[in-house]
Amino acid sequence: MIDFRNDYSQGAHESVMAALLAHSGEQNRGYGMDEHCGRAADVIRKLCDCPGAAVHFLPGGTQANLTVIAAILCPHQGVLCSDSAHIFTHETGAIEATGHKALFLPGYDGRLEAEDVEKYVTEHYASETFEHMPQPGMVEIANATELGTVYTLRQLTELSRVCRKHKLPLYLDGARLGYALAAEDSDLTFEKVAELADVFTIGGTKQGALYGEALVIVDPALQKDFRYHIKQRGGLLSKGFLMGIQFEALMTDDLYLRLSRHADRLALRFRDALRAQGVPFLVNSSTNQQFPIFPNTVLEKIGKDYGFEFTQRTDDDHAAVRFCFSWGTKEEDVTGLIEDIARFTA
Amino acid sequence: MIDFRNDYSQGAHESVMAALLAHSGEQNRGYGMDEHCGRAADVIRKLCDCPGAAVHFLPGGTQANLTVIAAILCPHQGVLCSDSAHIFTHETGAIEATGHKALFLPGYDGRLEAEDVEKYVTEHYASETFEHMPQPGMVEIANATELGTVYTLRQLTELSRVCRKHKLPLYLDGARLGYALAAEDSDLTFEKVAELADVFTIGGTKQGALYGEALVIVDPALQKDFRYHIKQRGGLLSKGFLMGIQFEALMTDDLYLRLSRHADRLALRFRDALRAQGVPFLVNSSTNQQFPIFPNTVLEKIGKDYGFEFTQRTDDDHAAVRFCFSWGTKEEDVTGLIEDIARFTA
Amino acid sequence: MIDFRNDYSQGAHESVMAALLAHSGEQNRGYGMDEHCGRAADVIRKLCDCPGAAVHFLPGGTQANLTVIAAILCPHQGVLCSDSAHIFTHETGAIEATGHKALFLPGYDGRLEAEDVEKYVTEHYASETFEHMPQPGMVEIANATELGTVYTLRQLTELSRVCRKHKLPLYLDGARLGYALAAEDSDLTFEKVAELADVFTIGGTKQGALYGEALVIVDPALQKDFRYHIKQRGGLLSKGFLMGIQFEALMTDDLYLRLSRHADRLALRFRDALRAQGVPFLVNSSTNQQFPIFPNTVLEKIGKDYGFEFTQRTDDDHAAVRFCFSWGTKEEDVTGLIEDIARFTA
Amino acid sequence: MIDFRNDYSQGAHESVMAALLAHSGEQNRGYGMDEHCGRAADVIRKLCDCPGAAVHFLPGGTQANLTVIAAILCPHQGVLCSDSAHIFTHETGAIEATGHKALFLPGYDGRLEAEDVEKYVTEHYASETFEHMPQPGMVEIANATELGTVYTLRQLTELSRVCRKHKLPLYLDGARLGYALAAEDSDLTFEKVAELADVFTIGGTKQGALYGEALVIVDPALQKDFRYHIKQRGGLLSKGFLMGIQFEALMTDDLYLRLSRHADRLALRFRDALRAQGVPFLVNSSTNQQFPIFPNTVLEKIGKDYGFEFTQRTDDDHAAVRFCFSWGTKEEDVTGLIEDIARFTA
Repeated sequence: MIDFRNDYSQGAHESVMAALLAHSGEQNRGYGMDEHCGRAADVIRKLCDCPGAAVHFLPGGTQANLTVIAAILCPHQGVLCSDSAHIFTHETGAIEATGHKALFLPGYDGRLEAEDVEKYVTEHYASETFEHMPQPGMVEIANATELGTVYTLRQLTELSRVCRKHKLPLYLDGARLGYALAAEDSDLTFEKVAELADVFTIGGTKQGALYGEALVIVDPALQKDFRYHIKQRGGLLSKGFLMGIQFEALMTDDLYLRLSRHADRLALRFRDALRAQGVPFLVNSSTNQQFPIFPNTVLEKIGKDYGFEFTQRTDDDHAAVRFCFSWGTKEEDVTGLIEDIARFTA
Repeated sequence: MIDFRNDYSQGAHESVMAALLAHSGEQNRGYGMDEHCGRAADVIRKLCDCPGAAVHFLPGGTQANLTVIAAILCPHQGVLCSDSAHIFTHETGAIEATGHKALFLPGYDGRLEAEDVEKYVTEHYASETFEHMPQPGMVEIANATELGTVYTLRQLTELSRVCRKHKLPLYLDGARLGYALAAEDSDLTFEKVAELADVFTIGGTKQGALYGEALVIVDPALQKDFRYHIKQRGGLLSKGFLMGIQFEALMTDDLYLRLSRHADRLALRFRDALRAQGVPFLVNSSTNQQFPIFPNTVLEKIGKDYGFEFTQRTDDDHAAVRFCFSWGTKEEDVTGLIEDIARFTA
Repeated sequence: MIDFRNDYSQGAHESVMAALLAHSGEQNRGYGMDEHCGRAADVIRKLCDCPGAAVHFLPGGTQANLTVIAAILCPHQGVLCSDSAHIFTHETGAIEATGHKALFLPGYDGRLEAEDVEKYVTEHYASETFEHMPQPGMVEIANATELGTVYTLRQLTELSRVCRKHKLPLYLDGARLGYALAAEDSDLTFEKVAELADVFTIGGTKQGALYGEALVIVDPALQKDFRYHIKQRGGLLSKGFLMGIQFEALMTDDLYLRLSRHADRLALRFRDALRAQGVPFLVNSSTNQQFPIFPNTVLEKIGKDYGFEFTQRTDDDHAAVRFCFSWGTKEEDVTGLIEDIARFTA
Repeated sequence: MIDFRNDYSQGAHESVMAALLAHSGEQNRGYGMDEHCGRAADVIRKLCDCPGAAVHFLPGGTQANLTVIAAILCPHQGVLCSDSAHIFTHETGAIEATGHKALFLPGYDGRLEAEDVEKYVTEHYASETFEHMPQPGMVEIANATELGTVYTLRQLTELSRVCRKHKLPLYLDGARLGYALAAEDSDLTFEKVAELADVFTIGGTKQGALYGEALVIVDPALQKDFRYHIKQRGGLLSKGFLMGIQFEALMTDDLYLRLSRHADRLALRFRDALRAQGVPFLVNSSTNQQFPIFPNTVLEKIGKDYGFEFTQRTDDDHAAVRFCFSWGTKEEDVTGLIEDIARFTA
């Protein structure tokens, strides 16, 4: 059984493991106040061309999302997000558990549109009973989205403009930021993300690390007291230096994006081969998550040898499923997969 | 500079690192549904002679505390704890952030006494306005305590009896459980802890792992739906299997307690040597944390070569400080430390 | 200007005021432990044929909703409601502020359907990642609904059956329960509501009282410790006896339903007259809230002499608006309103 | 049985009832947007010589406290208060239920001292692990305190100075503000309170109204979006105008302070008579709450004819109890009480 079910089935890239081993006996300061975290933060600030950014390291994505959102919002505010946002659908109400409503807008292949944000805010204040509804207090997006799609520079610029117009901090969940930036149709860069978003994460867990998300807070107003928030929500690991070590390794010699490119390339090999076979896709993804649609009978055959994740039934006889590719995916396994699917669908 | 400031300054024991490396390329199910977590849980259940326990793995201690306490309590309930409890003093109000008041009782060298719990509960219900005060809903203790002291079997039995009499779940924070069980004056065992507490943790982070706390839920009523709670609070790591791998390693060949014994032994060498030199201690600790009291002038000298943590001023000229010993502490460093202190205090 | 904008624009019915005056100098126990609350609760229990019900009095509807829902749900659970539910749309995220997600289902003229609840619950547990989504923990409906429609005995019976099958407490927000029960097309009674719902309110504020909602907790399991919850959320008024006095008055000589019948009758006079004039309605309401659709030009004319509330634009030239009728609405004002509208639409 | 147990056992002063009756048929805007609230707010602003203050009306004291404190604090912050503060002891953890820790300091006869606030803040930031503790985010006091004592102008000025130095908003719970300002030893005025506190309440419930607390927000930064907060916490009553009507009446012709003076005068008659009889008191209160200490045997006798509240046991044979005086207390009842006590203690 070869698993394409997700991009978090394997440990860490060998360079990351080597770094952890190399520093294993070393004594470091606790709670992220160590030199590794310091250096990793410096590298990230340089990469983002954002010398004033605050950089923290948190163990997981849901943790990062809930800590950021709860820190930014006032009690009466909600977070605008797409109806397929992870925070809206798959975090067991983590945002609500901090007291805030996730206010959803339509997603377009997972993406939020600036125009919808503009309309929501305008209509909110136009209502006579606006104080009886949560005030929109920030905007959350993910890049890549839950559906593997990416934001273009134009789209992100437009969102950012609307957000700043209405003083809504823009938070970009970058659990798969590497896969997004490495995508062939992406014209975004770390610098551009740091310029257009007010807070964002650079995901490690799904991109070569054992665990850890780098949280980059660009807006100085949002940087204040942030370590209190991390501690309060349980994300301030005593051995924070281990995340520093991992991100130092990932950010050395462009490893982070190299691994992302590897995954995206294999994903596109898969996508293009299947397209050539006439297999339809749920969305047009250019990153490491692909959502082909198969007849149930074919899925049954594929499922004997390969792991994938059920996404949604598209009709009585067909379903869209997710195949994920990662830094650890092997070329030959993709070759085999493509060939096997060709056989099953023939 | 040799650091005795805490027990989380180094990575993981070599056996733990070896296990992580050995399984690095392997594909595992996500979110703790993998075989490593399954096996680690089995070992822990056996160790605790508690086949019905639910075992989960969470990344950190504050995370575990807040998830457990918020899952157990009803909204109108608070958690009884000692006034030196970590949840009361050093988690940035994490418990309150989940909506619950930490109700403190006096700590006796960090320990809670059954009699005080009994009295609190009795007086609560005896009050005419009891509904105007948070209802005591559970009891939290730590073993070892924040001051390095341990509960005896008799003390824990008595606490457990009072808790069960009043239907208060008893949660034991075992971030340093190994150091407690390995202490020369401890007559507790994993089995006894599992028999007397309703929920407890077996700390990994401070006891040989990179990160991770095993959460053991003994009481079946408290096991229900627990994975929802972990997810909601941000503790359900996608690569949960990495904690399974680490705990498998720690629980193999008694490694966990062997490492604890090593640290405790060095701590007692330090304690006894200093006592022989006439150095007073803040409390009588038998575990890996020691709190000697020194003149400020001596502390200045020690501080040039050794890291320690300030605990509290005891008078204008003296302060109690913390020296920690861990699985990674070297015999020769302790020897050197003792000799240097002898010189400074001579 | 005669105001039909809402059903809370006037003080209290004269019988309620008379009762308050009559008892004004009397000394009563605080926090609802007085004889008036006791007697009002007894009358309500008798009216509902539910001798085991717990009855409390809270100052407002949002207060009642958030207190009940937060008391019932576990942290990882959400409340199922219709997409037009007041708790979903118009309480500034009050439910989320207590930590819980409002999980919405389609509303059919404001009503929730049993079948949709069944489907939601079934699909939740059928999902592989169900623990990553809030668990459905209870169901909330309102009768009358926000759109003035009512549940039939058959509909409520079916909802109750599905809720009990899945152990989901059913909470009925009865801010306008009198108007619902008094409706010509309603076959529900207080007894039936108490039989089919697990918790419900009998609204006072909009139905003849100065303020106050009676909260009836039928399910003994949900009664436990409830006064703690009311106190914690700020709803335990020290002068609770004033609500007892008001509800005693409202429940004497069928006053409550008599006032409701008065309002419903005037609402139907209005509805039927407008229908006869060819005016369309947003929904078919049989209670005190009516939602006619008018051309904007007509609304402008009506607005000069009458107060009403904007509900929604139905097309570029038309809008649905709300006219409310209450215990205090005068027959002659309705006559005048109907005649004036006839003139404007002629 | 004549009840001195509390100051909320009776309805409202006749002028308040008359005003409610006079406006009973009148139609008003909902949710406090009416003319009565507007006028009452204007009067209060004038009384406080604070034209820029925002004034809201909330139904109860706990409601006001939790709404204000939750609106002001950031998630990682706690509220500094005295260890006898109502929010710390008698609101069922209402503050914690909004996510914030109540950080207590010693109370001196119920009062907080500026010096202790200064020390707490200084020590917080001096700690190496300050981010592991809730940040002090505001200060709460009550005037009169829970023990009936009052702040002097000097004391409040000093507290205010320390709060402003550390940018901590100062909230004064004025549930019994009238009784405090009317006290013979008080040199505070509404103007001074408004000058020195950033937010405060003027209690109605215990001072002549049926229900309602006026919330005065002096600091413009804290005024923003406040109606959202009131709505979210359940305190935005649809018939808010009823509180406007009541406060209009209370603020007319100095009624509010006249009623307070009446109660304080009777309380001091009681206090001075008992002192003359040699009865000791728990604290030296100059307001409407008095805490004499009696032998248990005497309390038993008094309790046959008079209601009072148990406060605390002072030794095995004695207890301090509370006698409250209010706008509704009759001169002759106090005379009788004093005479009866003289007999019992003779």
